[in-house]
Parts: sequence; structure tokens; C-alpha cells
Amino acid sequence: MDKNPKVAIIMGSDSDLPIVAKAIKVLKEFKVDFEVRVISAHRTPDRASTFAKGAEAEGFDAIIAAAGKAAHLPGVLAAYTVLPVIGIPVKSSALDGMDALLSIVQMPSGIPVATVGIDGAENAGLLAVEMLSIKHEALRKALKLHRENMAQEVIKKDERISEEKF
Amino acid sequence: MDKNPKVAIIMGSDSDLPIVAKAIKVLKEFKVDFEVRVISAHRTPDRASTFAKGAEAEGFDAIIAAAGKAAHLPGVLAAYTVLPVIGIPVKSSALDGMDALLSIVQMPSGIPVATVGIDGAENAGLLAVEMLSIKHEALRKALKLHRENMAQEVIKKDERISEEKF
Amino acid sequence: MDKNPKVAIIMGSDSDLPIVAKAIKVLKEFKVDFEVRVISAHRTPDRASTFAKGAEAEGFDAIIAAAGKAAHLPGVLAAYTVLPVIGIPVKSSALDGMDALLSIVQMPSGIPVATVGIDGAENAGLLAVEMLSIKHEALRKALKLHRENMAQEVIKKDERISEEKF
Amino acid sequence: MDKNPKVAIIMGSDSDLPIVAKAIKVLKEFKVDFEVRVISAHRTPDRASTFAKGAEAEGFDAIIAAAGKAAHLPGVLAAYTVLPVIGIPVKSSALDGMDALLSIVQMPSGIPVATVGIDGAENAGLLAVEMLSIKHEALRKALKLHRENMAQEVIKKDERISEEKF
Amino acid sequence: MDKNPKVAIIMGSDSDLPIVAKAIKVLKEFKVDFEVRVISAHRTPDRASTFAKGAEAEGFDAIIAAAGKAAHLPGVLAAYTVLPVIGIPVKSSALDGMDALLSIVQMPSGIPVATVGIDGAENAGLLAVEMLSIKHEALRKALKLHRENMAQEVIKKDERISEEKF
Amino acid sequence: MDKNPKVAIIMGSDSDLPIVAKAIKVLKEFKVDFEVRVISAHRTPDRASTFAKGAEAEGFDAIIAAAGKAAHLPGVLAAYTVLPVIGIPVKSSALDGMDALLSIVQMPSGIPVATVGIDGAENAGLLAVEMLSIKHEALRKALKLHRENMAQEVIKKDERISEEKF
Amino acid sequence: MDKNPKVAIIMGSDSDLPIVAKAIKVLKEFKVDFEVRVISAHRTPDRASTFAKGAEAEGFDAIIAAAGKAAHLPGVLAAYTVLPVIGIPVKSSALDGMDALLSIVQMPSGIPVATVGIDGAENAGLLAVEMLSIKHEALRKALKLHRENMAQEVIKKDERISEEKF
Amino acid sequence: MDKNPKVAIIMGSDSDLPIVAKAIKVLKEFKVDFEVRVISAHRTPDRASTFAKGAEAEGFDAIIAAAGKAAHLPGVLAAYTVLPVIGIPVKSSALDGMDALLSIVQMPSGIPVATVGIDGAENAGLLAVEMLSIKHEALRKALKLHRENMAQEVIKKDERISEEKF
Repeated sequence: MDKNPKVAIIMGSDSDLPIVAKAIKVLKEFKVDFEVRVISAHRTPDRASTFAKGAEAEGFDAIIAAAGKAAHLPGVLAAYTVLPVIGIPVKSSALDGMDALLSIVQMPSGIPVATVGIDGAENAGLLAVEMLSIKHEALRKALKLHRENMAQEVIKKDERISEEKF
Repeated sequence: MDKNPKVAIIMGSDSDLPIVAKAIKVLKEFKVDFEVRVISAHRTPDRASTFAKGAEAEGFDAIIAAAGKAAHLPGVLAAYTVLPVIGIPVKSSALDGMDALLSIVQMPSGIPVATVGIDGAENAGLLAVEMLSIKHEALRKALKLHRENMAQEVIKKDERISEEKF
Repeated sequence: MDKNPKVAIIMGSDSDLPIVAKAIKVLKEFKVDFEVRVISAHRTPDRASTFAKGAEAEGFDAIIAAAGKAAHLPGVLAAYTVLPVIGIPVKSSALDGMDALLSIVQMPSGIPVATVGIDGAENAGLLAVEMLSIKHEALRKALKLHRENMAQEVIKKDERISEEKF
Repeated sequence: MDKNPKVAIIMGSDSDLPIVAKAIKVLKEFKVDFEVRVISAHRTPDRASTFAKGAEAEGFDAIIAAAGKAAHLPGVLAAYTVLPVIGIPVKSSALDGMDALLSIVQMPSGIPVATVGIDGAENAGLLAVEMLSIKHEALRKALKLHRENMAQEVIKKDERISEEKF
Repeated sequence: MDKNPKVAIIMGSDSDLPIVAKAIKVLKEFKVDFEVRVISAHRTPDRASTFAKGAEAEGFDAIIAAAGKAAHLPGVLAAYTVLPVIGIPVKSSALDGMDALLSIVQMPSGIPVATVGIDGAENAGLLAVEMLSIKHEALRKALKLHRENMAQEVIKKDERISEEKF
Repeated sequence: MDKNPKVAIIMGSDSDLPIVAKAIKVLKEFKVDFEVRVISAHRTPDRASTFAKGAEAEGFDAIIAAAGKAAHLPGVLAAYTVLPVIGIPVKSSALDGMDALLSIVQMPSGIPVATVGIDGAENAGLLAVEMLSIKHEALRKALKLHRENMAQEVIKKDERISEEKF
Repeated sequence: MDKNPKVAIIMGSDSDLPIVAKAIKVLKEFKVDFEVRVISAHRTPDRASTFAKGAEAEGFDAIIAAAGKAAHLPGVLAAYTVLPVIGIPVKSSALDGMDALLSIVQMPSGIPVATVGIDGAENAGLLAVEMLSIKHEALRKALKLHRENMAQEVIKKDERISEEKF
Repeated sequence: MDKNPKVAIIMGSDSDLPIVAKAIKVLKEFKVDFEVRVISAHRTPDRASTFAKGAEAEGFDAIIAAAGKAAHLPGVLAAYTVLPVIGIPVKSSALDGMDALLSIVQMPSGIPVATVGIDGAENAGLLAVEMLSIKHEALRKALKLHRENMAQEVIKKDERISEEKF
């Protein structure tokens, strides 16, 4: 029997939690197991490599990693595991998050990181669920329902605005 | 019995083929089935939506989409399917590929695209295999071997350079 | 007898309304009929294509579309209609609107989008009126009057400042 | 009886002709009358204002203007006419055309310029035709045919690549 | 006998006054005559050309022009006069003033604009005085005194901080 | 009797000569005396300060300085003299000249540099002549003639293209 | 017997003190002697060169220099000394600190500046200590302890978050 | 007795050798011992951490690390050692080296990397020598001689150009 899917959510600093919270919310909504960790690629590099090397054995199916500035965390984790790693560039005080985006997305050939938009934690959560749904059919159904709900929200707003008297 | 995994590789223009070829090479190396298509989000939008809507039923597990400039293709496909979509920003004559990168990675909340680096087709292929390996254990083993081979290549180069007389 | 000109104003999210309001104001000033809609290229892609395919038959002469981040909406609508589409890049939390600008203006050959500046909804409205004035002479006269009024405002400010004692 | 539609194509320097040629080709294909001029907003500013002020009386319905670097030409022309002005940012030796793009698209409120992508002369031509088609139904039909032809080309390439043995 | 030197300070919009005020302050400090005007290159183009054409005859020796976004004003004035024109790029709501900077500094060959930094009105004022000092010796002496005063201020701050107990 | 005007042209490296040559050509055309020097703000800082401190006494009226990358030369010279300093950002192998542009134009308050476009040596020469013309009337006349000649060239090209059969 | 190591901390303006304070804090923590100075490369260039020329004789082992905008200070100091110079780009009102970063890091060949991130004063302090530790073993030990403490902090946060109930 | 100073030069890929060669040349010129290695932060992460952890014990005093794209190598090495790490951002096919620059220089607080300019290997070598000269007086003398030689070269070029007949 298949084990439940499980996702690791790693942030480089606990100050990233307000961003990462949106990914957590998605995984909870889809009833996907997850663990949340604070691991710094630079301050605790050994914990980063130990975590990533052991992630598969610990039953993780995918890793979401968020970091700002010279955001090495997703790439460093990806270097130690063949689990898919999703990178969230976090906007910090300077450069509008462009530094984090380039540090994550421009990975050299051989070690991919699936990058989402700046502060795009909700999409990171959804992307993780999409990946898991390759194996877990129930998630695919749940994703479709989620899409349908999003569409309905837009449609309601559309109806409200269409009727508005400008 | 499980069906074989299958990946769609879509390019916005056949001029993207030299880039996309690196993703094809990866999928062949990992013996993953794939189909290669030219579908333009702008010139053939109905074919894009038809393809994306039918991709799951056609047995695809993931989609790789490459496009340049205002690169809407990956996002447009993602809007019509819950299969994971991997986006490759293609560098074109102006702006060094930054336009394509932002057009792909900055997807609004709700519809993720797993973005790789500019012209990063090799990583797109590897990311697809990593996603498939969530379900297909054999691919995980193959990925580890591939990593090992890449490491050996670097080590050989390291040995050669270490011995060089500067 | 000619029908009245009519413009569609589409926004990707109802949070864009404060921006789009400036376009609405212009169209009202010029007494051009318009409809305001919320249609997401990504969350409601079928509504986007349905709208764009039917826009000509519904009597629209031009479409104004506003979106932020990876702003595909104007290009997606343009792919389904030969009506002129005016794109407004909306500034969002990161990257100062540069992502939206490049996602809209860098359209590949074949499908143009008439792009205005970031948050440039007033100019989008005026550009729509200019386009309509190709057919509707009265609008051309109104545009000239509007220009004259703008000039007078600047002239008044100039006179006030010229007299100021610094 | 309606006069034939006519478009002015203005370039800031005759070195822009290879870019502008793609707009000329489109107008010829759609059998739209046009005139091609070299007028510099900076070297011949009086000719620029004279041209723009007289453009409507000369029977022009729209203006396409191409310029590089601090590309003021489209905005300068737009300041003197209420005809719709389409701006083409031309890539020059430095900054990848970003200077021209921002100089054209970021027009302040009141005087719009319909901006296309960097070196996007083909789209400038098509956008002009779309604008003209508001009045001239035959052009709308021609535009649809042109779209259809573009789609067929993509479809042919798709078929060729789908059959290719990778 | 030589006439007094005189500088024109032109802003594209009266909202630029808080920036431009720093240039006014410099000219007052150096007792250089000046006039302050609001002239829009786009909303009042004829007034812009009329002013620039007549500036020399009106006794101006240099022109300072401030504008934001697609900041054409300095270049447009420069096109109509051989007086030196100093351009101040004004930061506006988007793009951090980069659009204004590039629109001003990247002038094509033949028509120079002496560009200062974003919102750099104080330097614009000083640069004007430096230019005038080519003819007016007294200003050169005043400039040296001003430099000396600036240096003394820095030295005082240096002494204060050197003594601080950290 | 007035001495002849004289301009210093300083480049940070002799590899900048092909760029700087365009400024030399302008000064020769206007029969303005000049001296050309290679002085590095970083490799020969004492020569830079000695030169700038002595420039006024040596009879120079203005300084043109060209440099690439972290282009400090114009600002360093300006710190030691109240003569107007014109800065030319030189494009080098990386970053398209943006580094040099920002290093020159973004001077802090108090020490202005009159910045021209990237590789804009021709405009640097013309700007120097415009500055000198504040004192030397003959140069103003020459500048107007030069403008007239530039205009005639554009007009000739305009006539040639207007007659071309496209 | 070895003298104590000593670091100079130079800021271009006393408004940079809140940034620079983080470097001061590091040096105090490591009990490294330091002096804090306000020296402007542009307003007090002679003091800058005098300081840098004499820094070695004054017993300094390294220099930390912070500046914003066209941040020449670190490079100017480096031009006058062979002591290692660490540059801190300071974010100011425009361009997000990118101007300061490029003005510092893109130093031409021959005169290096060891650049840290925008507003990265803490790292500037740590880098200085690392440099000093080449000679002073005790500092190396202190650095390792500091790393260990940083790691422990991350680990504590990790434990706290791991236990959190999301 | 003091051991000889020794520097490690690490490149992420052997394709970086032509860049790194300039650092090697500097170290040879200053007769500083060095070792050259190819270690990839992503393909051989364990070798990277093993090297960095052991670098101090192996007698290294400083590390120079060069990498392109999402250039994590310098930061990853710095995370495992308190030796000063000098980072060289290497320009690769896209984005002009800006991605590598930001990935290296924007290190988060706690783990500094001394960053030089894009492809700035010569400065990396010189910076290493400057760091070593804190301990090794002879290197300081050699650095001064090197500076003197550079200055003489510039002076010779200056003399040659000053005499040139333009």
C-alpha cells in the first residue's frame, strides 16, 4: 500500500514564515502531510546537506525551499537529493527580489530547481501538489476542484463588476 | 499495471528546437516517452487550449514548454491543465531572455509554472524526470546514477587541472 | 447608420480596479460606451477566449486589458481577436511593474498589443478614443478639445509659477 | 465615399530602415497606402512638428514611428496630433533597446503612444491595420485571413516536428 | 558691459517643484538670475519649442529641465536651442526613475543634454553655475567658496564622529 | 583680450581612444583647442588630482572624461576642480555600459558631472562647445551652422527615402 | 611583539551611520580596534587621499568604506593604499542600491575592492575579521565560535518551528 | 617560522579557466603558492564541503572561487570555512553576468564573500595578495611595486597620447 505523500517546507530564516505560510495553507487544504523547518544553507550548511541527503529516506516526495538575497538554499538542497525541489525567491529589503530570483532560477545544467515567482509561496504549494498528483490520483481531482473554485470566484467578481454602474 | 510515463515537449516556434533539443536528449537518456510539438499560444491559441485540456487523457504526466519574448505559452498551457508545467524561457534577440524569464516565472497565484533558467532545457528535462520519479522508482535510481556520472566528470576534470603545471 | 463605438475594459483581477478606473473615467468623458469585466487569463481561460472570440460580434471596437506580474491577459485576448487590444501593465508588489511591462509589450510577431506605460490607464483610455476616432469624426474633435484643455491647465500652472516669488 | 486609409511610417534615422521594412511589408501585404519618411525629433524638430500637425489634413489615419536610444520621436509626434501613434523601440548598440522601450512606453498621462516590442515593426504594421479595420471592414477580413495563414504555418511545422524521429 | 547671467528652470509638471526647488535654492545662493516655468513637452509642445527658440534672445545662458517617466522635455528643448541644457530625471511612481534617466541621458548624437542624477536638482543648479563661471569669474570664486564650505561641514561631522564613543 | 577656449579630454585607459575620437573630431571641427590625456583615477590617482587642481590655471575651460566599468574618473576630477566636467560612460565587456553610466551620473549632491549617453563622445564634444559658447559668441554661431548642416543631412535622407519605391 | 590589528571604518556621509553601525558592532564583538571617520571622496577628496596614503603608517590593517549612489569612496581609497579595502554599497532613495553596488564592485583591473552586499555592513565587519585572522590566530578561533553561535540560533528556531502546530 | 602563504583557486567548471587564468598569473607574479581545483557546488557538493572544511588545515590562507549563472560556489565554500573567500562572478551566455554577480555579492548576514567585478579575476588575485600582506610584509612591498609599475604604464601611454597629433 502506498504511503501518504509528504512535502518538506524549508525556509532559510524564520523571518520568511509570513511568505511560506501561503504554501503551508495550500498543503493543509489539500491534506498533504508536510514538515516545516528552518535550515540555513550558509549558517547551518551541514544540517542542510544532512536533511537533503536523508529527505527521500524520511519519506519526503518533494521539497519547497524559500530564501532571499543570494538565495542558495534551494540549489544547495537540490545538489544533495534527486527529489524535485521547488524554489521560492523571497523579496528582501533591496533589489525587489531580483537577486533571489536569479540566484534560484539560473541553476547551472544538471541540478534543476523548479522556480516560482517572487514571494510565490501559494504557487509553490500548488506545484508540489501537482507533482504529487502524478502518483496520487485523488490529488488531481482535488486540484481540478480547486481550479473550479478559483474560476467561480473570478466569475462572481466579474458578475458584480459587470453590474456596477460606473 | 502502471502505464509508462510520458512527457510533452511544446515549443512556441520551431526556431526553439536547438534549445529544446537538450530536453529531448535527457528524456531519451532516461528512456522516458515523449512527444514534441510546435504550438503557439498566440498564433494557434485554440490548439494550445485543446492540447492542454486533453493532455491528461492522452496519457501525459508532465509538460515542458519553451518560449521567448513575452513567453505566454507555459502559463497558457498551465491554465488549462493541472499537470505540472515546466517553463523554459528562451533567449531571443533583445533583453537577454529577461523578458521571457519574467513572463514565465512571475505567474499570478493559482496557476504555477515550474520555471528553469534561461535556455535551461537540460534542467527542464531533468526536472520532468524528477517529477516522474515520485511515482516511478526506477527513474529515481537512474537519476542517482546520472548525478554520480556528472560528479565523476567533474572529478576527472579536477584531477586533470590539479596536475596541470601553471 | 453607424452603431455607437464600444470598448471593453478587462482586468485580470478586481484588485486592478483602482488603476483601471482612470480608463473608465476617460471613456465616460468622451461618452464612449464601454463594459467592464473581470476575466483572468489563467483562472478563467475559457471565459477569456470566449469573450475575445465574441467581442467583435458583441459590437466591441477595441479592448483594453490590464494585468500585473506575468501579465498574459492582453496577449491572450489578442490571440483570439483582430480587434485592437490595448495592454496596461499593472505594478504589483515586486519588480516595479517591469515584469508586467515586458510580458505585455514583448509580444512575438503576428499578434500585436498596443502597450501603454505602467499603470497608464488614462493613456489606455485616450488611445482607445484615438483609435475609434479613425471612424468617428466627432471623437477627433473631442480629442482636440481635450488636448486644448490639458494645455490650458499647464499654461495656468505656468502662469502661477512664473509669478511666484522664489 | 470613403477615402483610402493611409499610414505614415516615420523613422528617426535612415539606419532604422532594415527594422522598419517589416512594417512596410505588412502594409503592402494589406494593400494599405503609406508614406515613408526620415524625420528626426532632435535634428529636425520643426519638420517633426509640421509633419504631425498636418498629418490629419494630409489624409493619414495613423502614424508608425521608430527610434532608438532616448527615443522621443513617437512621443513628440503624438504631442502634435490626435491620430493614433504607434511607437517602435529600436535596439541600438547599448542597453539592448531598453532605453528606447522606456522612452517610448512610459509616456506621461494625456499623450498616449501605442508601443510594440523592441524592433517589433511587423507588429506595428499589424496594429495599424487593426486600428484601420475599425472603419474599414475589408481589412478586418484580411486580418482574419492573415491570422489563419499564420496558424496554418505553425500547424505545418507542428506536423513536421511531430513526425520527426528524435 | 556684460549682462547678468540668467538660467531658465523648466519643469514638465508643477508636481516636480519639490525636486526643482533644490536647483532654485542653489541659483539664489549664487545670486544668479533665473526664471521658473511649467512647460510640458507633450501637453504644450508649441510653448516648449517657442520657449527654446527664444531662450537665447531672452537672455538665458543655460536651461535646466526636469521631467519624469518618458522624460522628453530636456531633449525637446535642446533640439530647439544651442544653449546648454541640463536634464534632471525625476523619480516617479514606477521604475525608480530609471525610465526618466534613460530618456534623458541616452540622447542620440548631435543634440546633447547634460544629465545629472535622478532627482539631482542641487547638482543641476551647481552645474549651471559652473557653466556660467566660464564667462563670469566671480562665480568661479563663489563656487570655490561653496566647495570649501561643503568640505568644512564634512570635516565637522568627521570630528564629531571621530570623538564619538562607540 | 580673451584667451582662446581650451578643453581637456581625459580617458581612463588608452583603449577608450576609439570612443573618445568622436569628441576630438568635434572640437577640431569647431576649432577649439584641446589636449588629450590618459589618466587613470585608480592607477594614477595623484596625477588625476594634480591635473584637476591645475586645470584652471593651465587655461582649461572644461574637462571631458571618459571611463568604463566603475567609472570614477569624471567624478574624481570634478572633486578637485570647479570647471564643468563632462562624463562619458564607456561600454565595456559586461553590463552594456550600465555600470559606467550609473557610476558617473549618480554623483552625490555637491559635485556635479554633466553626463552624456553611453559611448556618447560626439555629444560630449558638442556639450563642451555649447558651454564655451556662453562666453564665446563665435562658437554659438558655429553651433547653429552645425545644427543646420545636421538638419540638411536628415532632410536629404528624407527626400531620398520619400522617393523610394517600396 | 605584534601590534593589535586595527580597522578603519569610513563613511561617505554621516547619514550612513545606521548602516555602518552593524560593522562597528561586529568589530567590538571581536575586540578589534577600529576608528570611525566621515570622509567624502567628492567633498573632501584631499582628506580621502591623505587618509588612505597614511593608513598603513597609522597602523591600520584593513579599511571598510561605505557609500551610496555613485559610490566612489571605496575605490578612491583603494587607489591610494595597498591595504585591503572592503566596500559597502549603501541603498539610497533611488535605484535600490544598484548604482552603489555597480560603482563599487565593477572596479577596473589593478585596484580591487572587496565588495559585500547592499547595506551589508555586518558582513563587511566579518570579512575584515576574516582577513585579520590570516595573521591573528585568536580571531580565527573567535570566528569559529561566532559561526557556531549563529548555527545554534538557527537550530533553536528550527526546533521551535518544527514543533509548531500549523 | 612562518609557513608560506597559500591560496586555493576553485572554479565551478573547467570552462571558467580562461577567466581564472588571470588570477593565477597574479599569484605567480607575486610568488604566492596556490592550488587550482575544479569543484562544483552542485555536481560535487560533498567535495565542496570537504575541501572548504579542510582548507585551513591544508595550509590555505584564502580561497578564490569563480562561478557563473546562479553562482553558489563562493558562498557554499564560505559557509564551511572562516578563511576569507573571494568570489568572481563569471559572465555566461545570458544576463551579462548580472545573475552571477547578485548570486555572489548578496550573501545574507553572517557569511561574507569578498566579491570582485564580473570576470574580475585579476582583481581577485590582487585582493588575495593584499589580504596575505596583512601578515606577510614582503607582499606589501611587492604590491607597492606592482602599483608603481601600473602607474608607469599609464604614464607612458599618457605621454605617447599627449604627443600625438590629432
